[in-house]
Amino acid sequence: MSARRPDHEETNGNNLRARRVALDTHDQLVVITRRDSPVCRSEGFSAHARVRLQSGERRIIATLYQIDSELLEADEIALSESAWERLQVEEGDLVHIAHPQPLDSLGLVRGRIYGHVLGREEMHRIIADIAAGRYADIHLSMFLTIMAARPPDDDELIHLTEAMVNAGDRLRWKRQLIADKHCVGGLPGNRTTPLVVAMVTACGLWMPKTSSRAITSPAGTADTMETMAPVDLDLEQMRAVVEKEGGCIAWGGAMRLSPVDDMLIRVARLMDLDAEGQMVASVLSKKVAAGSTHLVLDLPVGPTAKVRSQEEAEELSRRLHSVANAFGLKLRVLITDGSEPVGRGIGPALEARDLLAVLRNDADHPVDLRRRAVRLAGALLELTGTAGEGRGEAMAESTLDDGQAWKKFQAICAAQGGLREPPLAARRHDMSAVGAGEVVSIDNRRLARVAKLAGAPAAAAAGLEIHVKLGDHVETGQALYTIHAETAGELNYAREFAETNGIIKLA
Amino acid sequence: MSARRPDHEETNGNNLRARRVALDTHDQLVVITRRDSPVCRSEGFSAHARVRLQSGERRIIATLYQIDSELLEADEIALSESAWERLQVEEGDLVHIAHPQPLDSLGLVRGRIYGHVLGREEMHRIIADIAAGRYADIHLSMFLTIMAARPPDDDELIHLTEAMVNAGDRLRWKRQLIADKHCVGGLPGNRTTPLVVAMVTACGLWMPKTSSRAITSPAGTADTMETMAPVDLDLEQMRAVVEKEGGCIAWGGAMRLSPVDDMLIRVARLMDLDAEGQMVASVLSKKVAAGSTHLVLDLPVGPTAKVRSQEEAEELSRRLHSVANAFGLKLRVLITDGSEPVGRGIGPALEARDLLAVLRNDADHPVDLRRRAVRLAGALLELTGTAGEGRGEAMAESTLDDGQAWKKFQAICAAQGGLREPPLAARRHDMSAVGAGEVVSIDNRRLARVAKLAGAPAAAAAGLEIHVKLGDHVETGQALYTIHAETAGELNYAREFAETNGIIKLA
Repeated sequence: MSARRPDHEETNGNNLRARRVALDTHDQLVVITRRDSPVCRSEGFSAHARVRLQSGERRIIATLYQIDSELLEADEIALSESAWERLQVEEGDLVHIAHPQPLDSLGLVRGRIYGHVLGREEMHRIIADIAAGRYADIHLSMFLTIMAARPPDDDELIHLTEAMVNAGDRLRWKRQLIADKHCVGGLPGNRTTPLVVAMVTACGLWMPKTSSRAITSPAGTADTMETMAPVDLDLEQMRAVVEKEGGCIAWGGAMRLSPVDDMLIRVARLMDLDAEGQMVASVLSKKVAAGSTHLVLDLPVGPTAKVRSQEEAEELSRRLHSVANAFGLKLRVLITDGSEPVGRGIGPALEARDLLAVLRNDADHPVDLRRRAVRLAGALLELTGTAGEGRGEAMAESTLDDGQAWKKFQAICAAQGGLREPPLAARRHDMSAVGAGEVVSIDNRRLARVAKLAGAPAAAAAGLEIHVKLGDHVETGQALYTIHAETAGELNYAREFAETNGIIKLA
Repeated sequence: MSARRPDHEETNGNNLRARRVALDTHDQLVVITRRDSPVCRSEGFSAHARVRLQSGERRIIATLYQIDSELLEADEIALSESAWERLQVEEGDLVHIAHPQPLDSLGLVRGRIYGHVLGREEMHRIIADIAAGRYADIHLSMFLTIMAARPPDDDELIHLTEAMVNAGDRLRWKRQLIADKHCVGGLPGNRTTPLVVAMVTACGLWMPKTSSRAITSPAGTADTMETMAPVDLDLEQMRAVVEKEGGCIAWGGAMRLSPVDDMLIRVARLMDLDAEGQMVASVLSKKVAAGSTHLVLDLPVGPTAKVRSQEEAEELSRRLHSVANAFGLKLRVLITDGSEPVGRGIGPALEARDLLAVLRNDADHPVDLRRRAVRLAGALLELTGTAGEGRGEAMAESTLDDGQAWKKFQAICAAQGGLREPPLAARRHDMSAVGAGEVVSIDNRRLARVAKLAGAPAAAAAGLEIHVKLGDHVETGQALYTIHAETAGELNYAREFAETNGIIKLA
């Protein structure tokens, strides 16, 4: 009944009826046919082949599996939920199946591996093919690996950023001046964005913030924000929130802002790889696509942060400025202390609790988190000319003191769909000091790993709560941090790792 | 009934009943559970997670998908055929499901990406994890990409080769001297191995040849040989053939000789990437594991062959000697002409037809193929001391002339399970000259691509037959080559590519 006909030139009998089987493959696009399906035999498809599917105007590239059983009819094709959504079919719709076109741009990636630098046109071809879903995960892994191993030069990085911007939508706002901030991450608990948005929008700026979910960390800003309000806004919803309140904290992936960035981030997460060049293109393509004009960037440096030395930070800052300039984006980079976690919580809900304590001026709010947020908001107020040089921090801080930032945050949450309290995990376990002494080092990376093993960010309430800071004196048996998890399996898994690794060192 | 109990320490209730669903995912290990399965909920598994499965003593790492339907019971786990075979379960067996251990050696691969050179111990840890199936395809892609982008130094390459040998079985033979040959490939139709085996074993040497299937080419020696005799021998079958006839041409992948090489080759094929260092480790790990003591290596050089220049060939030869020396393997490298295809056929069965024509001394046998095989066999007879220097080729050639090589080849095929005639494809299409002139260049890579698009090597009869050589004069409308395919879809696909690419150039 609702069956759609593929384009005329595509109709050559290679059509199968779509069947929904409620198969969740996460973001992998998977389809299944009978091995003895006439279409597969005539086209010579074998299992694990990449195939091109078309229904109406929609096209996807998917991985084909084959089944020898009566669970499917010979003229049916089962689609994973991800494929079902991307192809926008209904039960019984005709789906055209064909070989994908040869992936010529992969030859450019191979050339890059062997030392060739990519020109503008070449980079755009690669990114356009990625955007069209024509790269399998192993091809994305090739691209990410070589861009990490042999970092792009400034021109190549500008091409990459531009290609990523062009592959998606680009927002236009009713204001000339659009503020933005970003943190390169690597510092657990450094969740300043919602505070900065609340402060600067309380001062009258527009700050339509799109944030990502975690890449390799236990929580991204979008993950944290989602425990307090919906973040999965489409473009029109986001526009409405911003026009009403001046700001928002939305998940960028729900929009088509630099969608290639999301595809690369997904694979980079599986690879557990963060590379500088990719990071610059990732951050700036999102900002340019989001229509930002003024950006403050938090760059924490510490022995176990993402950026480990002052030199590395300065080189990264130079690259960010070089690319930002090419797009007319005003940038200020703040190199900050990344030697220990910020606040107390690590994990979406636990970090949200810290944020709420700052906004509500709770007596026991995490002072370091507030301090960092004020510094960033102050820099943004100065960069945009809202405050004079040296006066930004005071202006920002006053919005916390007088409750304007909290009021604004509540209004933004309400506009996004309603403020809610972050959840609390079902299971907890204290990791205690085996001896007494002074805290001399905290391994951010391993702490992040414990939080991830505990289930963060997929389990929003999972993560950990840290009870000590560098320099604190602790007694034997005193709790250093508490692991939060939703399931016994994850709690044990995190404990096992925590117990065999000296994450917080005493002396 | 046949349910096996997992190890005691592993029994913590995370058991599901195995269900076979005849799902062919090729070599991907995939399992499917209900999303509401209690085990998944307690362990926090989500779709696309990597999970560790155990049944009895067998363990695998697989990709988990989840289903929301009654097709599976909540306590069942569906296994792909590949997972079913690797785990060796029967219907209803209990399968234990758990989080995989953290993949620590991936940090070493990341270190390699950022410029660290891998020590012996580090390389062995990576290869052992790969051998245990703990690397997902994107992780293998990372490893292959960085080894291509920043080639291993000689020490690292020796470590890699040694680790690959150690990760599998190693053959011992009843003879001290074991002959072997290899071609680095890239030259379509250069299928000399079966001829060389026939000639040198006819001269009394032992040559237990294990060959690979195609990596990025339209046919590997194992693919070609399989159209004439079974090649899927296990170790005992192979040993019996060799002890009886002195030689065999078996598929190496059916044995556990450097199994990591097979895993890397599978992903390298999907990446369409051949890298020098990986090639050296791949070739030599197989030879060392196979117990070879004397190896002749054919290294074709040409503008569209795998090795494109004399300098590249000499560097590769140097690296091969360096690694071979470390394992006490005697090596002779022959740098040969790779400017045009060898013989007439490209594709498993079409190449087999060329071989049979040479062995049978058919009047129209491909002279170039015979010449190359004689040169390699002669070098091997000299390297092993069977013939004096300068006398090897004559000795080799005499076995073709007097039919001893053909007799020996038939005996080997009979011992492997029976000689058969290669199949002929159902569909053919002539690609004809659009003008007249002399053949000035032949693009090996694009010809190989046409053969692959036509279905080779999966479709054994697919490929193409070339009717001209460099320097030939052709008339307008004369057939340059004939595409062979089993299905209309593949024939069209190959034709489309062939028509839009000037593969054979006239002037």
